[in-house]
Amino acid sequence: MFRVQVLGCSSAVPAFGRHPSAQYVQHHERGFLVDCGEGTQMQMLRYGVRFKRLEAIFITHLHGDHVFGLPGLLNTLSLNNRQEELHVFGPPGLRMLLEDVFKHSQGALRYPLKITEIGSPDHSVIYETPFLAVEALPLNHKVACIGFLFREKPKRPQFLALKAQEMLVPKAYFRLLKLGNAVTLPDGRVIEPAVLQGPTPPQYSFAYCSDTAYRPALAERLQNVSLLYHEATFLETELARAIETAHSTAAQAAALARDAGAGRLLMGHFSARYKTLDGHLAEARAVFPQSWLAFEGQVYTIGPGTAEEAGFVDRKPIFNPKHHETEAE
Amino acid sequence: MFRVQVLGCSSAVPAFGRHPSAQYVQHHERGFLVDCGEGTQMQMLRYGVRFKRLEAIFITHLHGDHVFGLPGLLNTLSLNNRQEELHVFGPPGLRMLLEDVFKHSQGALRYPLKITEIGSPDHSVIYETPFLAVEALPLNHKVACIGFLFREKPKRPQFLALKAQEMLVPKAYFRLLKLGNAVTLPDGRVIEPAVLQGPTPPQYSFAYCSDTAYRPALAERLQNVSLLYHEATFLETELARAIETAHSTAAQAAALARDAGAGRLLMGHFSARYKTLDGHLAEARAVFPQSWLAFEGQVYTIGPGTAEEAGFVDRKPIFNPKHHETEAE
Repeated sequence: MFRVQVLGCSSAVPAFGRHPSAQYVQHHERGFLVDCGEGTQMQMLRYGVRFKRLEAIFITHLHGDHVFGLPGLLNTLSLNNRQEELHVFGPPGLRMLLEDVFKHSQGALRYPLKITEIGSPDHSVIYETPFLAVEALPLNHKVACIGFLFREKPKRPQFLALKAQEMLVPKAYFRLLKLGNAVTLPDGRVIEPAVLQGPTPPQYSFAYCSDTAYRPALAERLQNVSLLYHEATFLETELARAIETAHSTAAQAAALARDAGAGRLLMGHFSARYKTLDGHLAEARAVFPQSWLAFEGQVYTIGPGTAEEAGFVDRKPIFNPKHHETEAE
Repeated sequence: MFRVQVLGCSSAVPAFGRHPSAQYVQHHERGFLVDCGEGTQMQMLRYGVRFKRLEAIFITHLHGDHVFGLPGLLNTLSLNNRQEELHVFGPPGLRMLLEDVFKHSQGALRYPLKITEIGSPDHSVIYETPFLAVEALPLNHKVACIGFLFREKPKRPQFLALKAQEMLVPKAYFRLLKLGNAVTLPDGRVIEPAVLQGPTPPQYSFAYCSDTAYRPALAERLQNVSLLYHEATFLETELARAIETAHSTAAQAAALARDAGAGRLLMGHFSARYKTLDGHLAEARAVFPQSWLAFEGQVYTIGPGTAEEAGFVDRKPIFNPKHHETEAE
């Protein structure tokens, strides 16, 4: 299981029911948070995300809409009696931010917090599990900003259990064969593992790119990414504003997805100036048809299956018309 | 118009759809925020609170569940192009907390922020408008903690317009008479203002007491408070835990309301260990019948009228059963 759940898809100012940035990535039993804008813990509760499964948190940059939910979440994990170490990655300054906040608010965590500051993201692996590696990507924003690429490690070829049964291989030998060992059966036959290997399952990947100006060079490093989440703060009509604020337009996000040969594009970090997002969708799909709007609460599967099966659907967000007092981003 | 809207009624850990502490107090056209837990700006949007009306913010203490929403809200006001000065009151350390957070997150506010740290709350007036005064109350918590009393200033006596008409006083003289001046009419009569004065309307008041251990001495200073908001983190069955953590039980909150001769008691800051709050209500009402549970989003009028007219109603909160992973408070 490899999936991402969007917890917030707004830019700097929450609006129309859209919350600050946060996404929950789950790979098998392991949970990761990417960004932690204000209110992330409440969004996790709202959408039933398991706090206990959280293994590491990846912060792209220290602008408030990406990190102001972190102290509260860390506090809550402590009050929830978490014992396990939690690993937090982010740009330089993250440690001081957390230390200062906890100093002034007299907070103390009861579990070990390991903070890793990434000075120069260079596509190297910063974290891994037995089945997944996380790389840090350089982004172009007004402050130090890191993208994250979650890439599945090479998988074993499929084991052809049916063929093994037909060959009268006892089940007790399946595990050794699956792990790639040759075995000698009680009847003297030697079975090479390749004989029972089917195709190797594809490795899926998820890239998170926010906040950033359009950075075409990323396409090469993100070749064939299964799902690209990319910010689309603006429309092309606000291109000048996008450049000025080091953000991207929907068309630029789509161009990157197209040039990277991405499976799908998920757009988010929408400016509060946009009440509806039809413009983003149209603009992106003209460039890259597999473009989708992020909806909060929605779970997107990273893997095989049709768009609909994987959770990518077009729908109208439910929004509160009072949720708009601003033209800021 | 004098009213308070509850934006958050949870204690340290949000649970069951209950959010960290925040209340919006409105007196005529002026808006004040008391406490600003994480997510307060989203709660304001959710319940249609006007950001522009916000004149001052009062922070009781620096525990995260009372202040972690402040940096994000201040940021949003700036991105909303606020120009007017905003006055923030709180305990010592508030200034450094904000300065450090904005330093690390590279935030800069475009409007003047005036921070007043209150070292020793002693019931003196810390803020006033032409019609309202705010006093700082000493509370007993684990860290420096301030309660706030919003007290209407003395009002003018009612002007008996009907009687004035019967006395054939021209309407042009009403305003002078209302303001307490004697007037000489064109027909030579001298009208003393007292002749046309009815009863003086009562002054209403609202006290906010959270977080605090039971502090019976407050009753004397809160005599006849119209509405007392008091934390009721625990039930009497958890009295030892209440004492240990410097919090109050529902019965203690009710005892203070009773001893202060309060009009009504509003309870909040409920521990995440309580899924439902029927116990709090029963425990408090046994001591002080005009006890009520705070419901998020609900607007409570501070003034005349029946409980129902003023917004005090018993209802079942809508909660998400997933909203519970903890026994912490």
